[in-house]
Amino acid sequence: MSATKPFTIACIQDGIADTQAATVDATVTRIRDAARRGANVICLKELFDAPYFCKTLDQARFNLAEPVTGPTITRMRALAKELAVVLIVPFYERQAPGLYRNSAAVIDADGTLLGLYRKMHIPHDPLFEEKYYFAPGESTAMAQPEGCPGPARQSGGFMVWETKYAAIGVLICWDQWYPEAARITALLGADVLVYPTAIGWHPAEKATFGEAQVDAWRTAQRAHAIANGVFVAAPNRAGFEPEAGTAGLEFFGHSFIADPFGRLLADAGTEPTTLIATCDPALIEDTRRNWPFLRDRRVDAYRGMLERWLA
Amino acid sequence: MSATKPFTIACIQDGIADTQAATVDATVTRIRDAARRGANVICLKELFDAPYFCKTLDQARFNLAEPVTGPTITRMRALAKELAVVLIVPFYERQAPGLYRNSAAVIDADGTLLGLYRKMHIPHDPLFEEKYYFAPGESTAMAQPEGCPGPARQSGGFMVWETKYAAIGVLICWDQWYPEAARITALLGADVLVYPTAIGWHPAEKATFGEAQVDAWRTAQRAHAIANGVFVAAPNRAGFEPEAGTAGLEFFGHSFIADPFGRLLADAGTEPTTLIATCDPALIEDTRRNWPFLRDRRVDAYRGMLERWLA
Repeated sequence: MSATKPFTIACIQDGIADTQAATVDATVTRIRDAARRGANVICLKELFDAPYFCKTLDQARFNLAEPVTGPTITRMRALAKELAVVLIVPFYERQAPGLYRNSAAVIDADGTLLGLYRKMHIPHDPLFEEKYYFAPGESTAMAQPEGCPGPARQSGGFMVWETKYAAIGVLICWDQWYPEAARITALLGADVLVYPTAIGWHPAEKATFGEAQVDAWRTAQRAHAIANGVFVAAPNRAGFEPEAGTAGLEFFGHSFIADPFGRLLADAGTEPTTLIATCDPALIEDTRRNWPFLRDRRVDAYRGMLERWLA
Repeated sequence: MSATKPFTIACIQDGIADTQAATVDATVTRIRDAARRGANVICLKELFDAPYFCKTLDQARFNLAEPVTGPTITRMRALAKELAVVLIVPFYERQAPGLYRNSAAVIDADGTLLGLYRKMHIPHDPLFEEKYYFAPGESTAMAQPEGCPGPARQSGGFMVWETKYAAIGVLICWDQWYPEAARITALLGADVLVYPTAIGWHPAEKATFGEAQVDAWRTAQRAHAIANGVFVAAPNRAGFEPEAGTAGLEFFGHSFIADPFGRLLADAGTEPTTLIATCDPALIEDTRRNWPFLRDRRVDAYRGMLERWLA
């Protein structure tokens, strides 16, 4: 069931502290602040409590993964319950020995762990070597942690979560470049698509391509809002993170919240900040009535979407 | 086969003259000018030689349709041959008595009529009552006019055309809101997607929504360029067209040509003009190597795309 009244969403844009414990503490402070400012749904950046460790292949970094039953998600569940907020908590998940995921825990406002979305599209590029660290989300019905109600609806590994305040579609970072992921998640009944992200500049590229990269990133996701008539919220990582033997990565921030017509309700620069915006579900139906794209989809004609290449 | 060397594309943004003959004459003048300025591929606006007649239901307006063997396309074929340019000519097609289409003739640089793309997504909204006037393009292999070679490749009614200068994907107006249409056409091997368009402002909405509408229109199509790593060219209609008993429509122009990273190579205001830009196919591969989206599509997980709604 979609939201019936306005809900307020927050995107926390930040970097990391010196230790995992200090990063979690700082994030808790930011969550408390967002709740005090009226947020109902609070979204953190991708892999929120860790450095972006995928910059090189290092077996020891698998140790950064933590089970969903571990102390971090347990603490976040208690916090959600205390503040009566929905939390989207992206973390490095240890599902089994040797099986690790880029996941997001979806925690309802009473502290219930609804379940996990596991990133479907996994990149692998210089300093973003994610295919080494993460098994991709599954295209079959996904195993959820024991005792979790799981998503309200799912299709091929894409999911929508019924929370106290809104029907939320969670996707992660690289997923944001795929109109397919946005479309399927919107068709599952999402009011808002959230995209926890860790995207940054290679320092050597920033001067030439930095601005175009930010603009492409924002444009692709604003287009998901427009094509589907949904809100979009994208919290990105901020700050420089070094990696020995490389120039490191400068995560570019520029988090934003867009309405169903792609208009920016809130947007950030490169510094840590918390964005807050109120989303009125009436605007979803109003937008879809003005330009009724969903009515005219040619579902009889899209089988080519299931192929890698058609030429 | 994709283009192997740079090609120059032109978008003619204009309105209509008092008669069909005068509109065709003016368009021929603009095409000659574009060719003189170096254009290899020249794209006209949707239903180029007619007023935008779909503002009301009027049976007499079916008379505006002309067979592909009629004088207009015949004249355009001779012009393409004379100037050695590829022409994309959108027109109101009379396919059979009582069967009319919103089509685009694809004419190669030697005057060969390669065939017709027929608009797949048909809108129907106040003053855009297209479901009355047009049968939609087919999801099965499409009948091409007798003697035409047809598209090089097709899938579900979406098509790519091998012309002298480039592999061209032709889509029409409302198609531009559908990432599915862009994706399938790109996977068919297009270097460039062209979107002949007739989009405008309702005068009563312009002050409040006009700017956001132009921005949504441009953003959706720039996102197709980004998601697929292709050039996009969108020639739109310009100028006010009245309709008795209504406030009429002000076609908003703002035609543009974007590169595979969504950057604008050329863009127009609201006045008649011809945009020209050179497209280097090397940039397609370079862009797709930098952020290799096509590699990571989850073709195993997209079956939900074939449904109207999943909730």
